[in-house]
Amino acid sequence: MEESFSAVFKQSVSVTAASRTDAGVHALGQRVCFNVENCRIPTGKLPLILNSYLPDDIAVTAIETVGADFNPRYMAKEKKYHYNIWNGKTPNPLIRHTVVFFPYKMEIGLMREAAKSFEGKHDFAAFRATGSCVLTTVRDIYECRLDSDGCLITIIIRGGGFLYNMIRIIAGTLVAVGQGKLRPSDIPLIIRSRERSEAGPTMPAHGLTLVAIKY
Amino acid sequence: MEESFSAVFKQSVSVTAASRTDAGVHALGQRVCFNVENCRIPTGKLPLILNSYLPDDIAVTAIETVGADFNPRYMAKEKKYHYNIWNGKTPNPLIRHTVVFFPYKMEIGLMREAAKSFEGKHDFAAFRATGSCVLTTVRDIYECRLDSDGCLITIIIRGGGFLYNMIRIIAGTLVAVGQGKLRPSDIPLIIRSRERSEAGPTMPAHGLTLVAIKY
Repeated sequence: MEESFSAVFKQSVSVTAASRTDAGVHALGQRVCFNVENCRIPTGKLPLILNSYLPDDIAVTAIETVGADFNPRYMAKEKKYHYNIWNGKTPNPLIRHTVVFFPYKMEIGLMREAAKSFEGKHDFAAFRATGSCVLTTVRDIYECRLDSDGCLITIIIRGGGFLYNMIRIIAGTLVAVGQGKLRPSDIPLIIRSRERSEAGPTMPAHGLTLVAIKY
Repeated sequence: MEESFSAVFKQSVSVTAASRTDAGVHALGQRVCFNVENCRIPTGKLPLILNSYLPDDIAVTAIETVGADFNPRYMAKEKKYHYNIWNGKTPNPLIRHTVVFFPYKMEIGLMREAAKSFEGKHDFAAFRATGSCVLTTVRDIYECRLDSDGCLITIIIRGGGFLYNMIRIIAGTLVAVGQGKLRPSDIPLIIRSRERSEAGPTMPAHGLTLVAIKY
């Protein structure tokens, strides 16, 4: 983005993203902030121009002007993510880049029950990558639920913010519940343990999509 | 497929496909026929084994035994295709491999009306790639309609069989109607003309997916 933007605006442009998603994670609703001196192109025309410079796996959907003190990361009020699982016996190659193939039998009813326990303000120390360093591991999850459509299972999570790998570990824990390796009633105990080893595995990055950010 | 199948069955395997889709066209419901001598693996276990040998953009979803006289192409009774168009102002990178980005304003109501005229048994000489050679250009279309979901427009076509590039040219003609370059009432005249130059452009291959084949 910085290369393309610098070419369009004929000046060195650096961008700050709202969400620093791990490599392999997708985004439909990422927000990125940048500063440009003397831009004479109307903001309405910018997406088309910027997209003609960007590679085809990145697109600008809208541009708006913000104050100099705007911080896309710290001012975000809510982030919404989808974690997609293809729970068929055989893979679906057409969606392989955004959906994780998981062919084992899962009880969606149990996963739905377990998902509810993630909602609310909790210390999510058990659900972060080991070695990650933050001031507090308390996060507020506004919604955690499952949608299913044929073989496609989508875990929908909305919250004020997330720890590193947190959603991928929550997804892995829900999959463990679906397989009967954990019970829905185990979730509050895992949260209370604050131990990464108590939670399920980290699911692959490519199943995760940042869907929207609210300010 | 032939390479992977030959490796699994430890013999030279050649496959015959029901539909010889153009390069770049996707398939969810392709049917492929092949002959194997002395196969001791139960057919139910074959998909898993074959998929472990196939590249990740091809998957076998089911295997069944057929008679020696079965021909997947000539015995097909119905083929169903989807042509996907992303009619937003900006592209959606996550579905760029299976959906064609077309940002210009289109009247879906007019496209719906025009689609109806393709249904039925007609001489589709105007809707085939120039230079293609077949015994007859008469084809029977059972259904031609549009589905829309936000920016995504899907042209759904079912028929007994199709000429080379026929669906991509029908899609291009419907897009021309949507843009006001053609009227719905022009479709019967274009069909009657039998002239390729009267129909709309050939839309890109990657928007097309063979969805299902019936026998």
